Amino acid sequence: MPLTDERREIEFWFDFASNYSYLSVMRIEDAAAATGATVVWRPFLLGPIFKSFGWDNSPFVLQHEKGDYMWKDMARECRKYGLPWNRPSTFPRVSTLPARVAIVAAETPWIGEFCRRIMLLNFASDRDINSQEAVAEVLSNLGLPALQILDEAQSETNKPRLRQQTETAKAKRIFGAPTFFVNGEMFWGNDRLNDALRFAGERVKARD
Amino acid sequence: MPLTDERREIEFWFDFASNYSYLSVMRIEDAAAATGATVVWRPFLLGPIFKSFGWDNSPFVLQHEKGDYMWKDMARECRKYGLPWNRPSTFPRVSTLPARVAIVAAETPWIGEFCRRIMLLNFASDRDINSQEAVAEVLSNLGLPALQILDEAQSETNKPRLRQQTETAKAKRIFGAPTFFVNGEMFWGNDRLNDALRFAGERVKARD
Repeated sequence: MPLTDERREIEFWFDFASNYSYLSVMRIEDAAAATGATVVWRPFLLGPIFKSFGWDNSPFVLQHEKGDYMWKDMARECRKYGLPWNRPSTFPRVSTLPARVAIVAAETPWIGEFCRRIMLLNFASDRDINSQEAVAEVLSNLGLPALQILDEAQSETNKPRLRQQTETAKAKRIFGAPTFFVNGEMFWGNDRLNDALRFAGERVKARD
Repeated sequence: MPLTDERREIEFWFDFASNYSYLSVMRIEDAAAATGATVVWRPFLLGPIFKSFGWDNSPFVLQHEKGDYMWKDMARECRKYGLPWNRPSTFPRVSTLPARVAIVAAETPWIGEFCRRIMLLNFASDRDINSQEAVAEVLSNLGLPALQILDEAQSETNKPRLRQQTETAKAKRIFGAPTFFVNGEMFWGNDRLNDALRFAGERVKARD
């Protein structure tokens, strides 16, 4: 077995446009730390996945009954987790730019805080998250060189990385977000985050 | 406010064909009793609901990625709840006959046990649940007059009651099962059963 297999790792596949990803982005670092697991951040775009199913939008938009219910559920879930919540006036929001930045940032120590702040813009402050201004503001507030990072994120070498990550998501048969993988085992939805972390812990214990 | 409004009641909408309904059918009576809530059993058929969305089958059959994931999730969920599990060789199973019996039985003291036994036939014993034999066997094992109940369930006065219940589900904008209502508030999915029961408790406490 390779060494990485022994660590408690949780792969976290998410899209900044996805409301249930918001819940997990806000929770995952603390929840993982509490169980000794490391988060592997995997930003991707759900749009192309939905398109591959023949859908031209989120199922929450296409299916009115489910969509209307989802907004009520989100308000309750945010109350449950103590998270701020304002239903976005645009849904789903285009999330390509922050996703490109997250691809650049995935292995940096500021990835978690960056993702949380982008999510809060979308789901608490009801702001466009795909503008240079919004993303630059988040980066600057983190004390980071915003323009340099935005340049790198939008470079012709980085753009294909997000496309490739989304292709990988499709190949892994991801059909929604958030999705977690722990040693190849898939867990779908914020409702399964704790189960995924428990599974990560059990695997390690079994080898002790 | 009418008197019934003051009681802790949870309306439980389910289909014997639905795998996630299986989890809730097995759990709900104990979980509700622990919080002092009463279960109001509302069997219905998901098929006509799906048809109204333009689907000719369960989304778990139509969407392969989601369907394949669901079977893994079910195995894990059953382990989590300590429930027996065998993936049914036919899915979704026709559930009209046991649903008609459940309509007859909804207000009897044996409704919970009847529903659990039908669900176990489907999701633990991998048996057809729509045959006279299977349903009669369950009823007889409960010490009930099986043939008399089957006659009543299949009578021309009872058949429209199941159709009506399914129409009511549609009118309440139910889009899947299990679905719970607590004082008009909708909760969808076995993952929300505890939240629904907590909500029932809070409502009563707020009025104390």
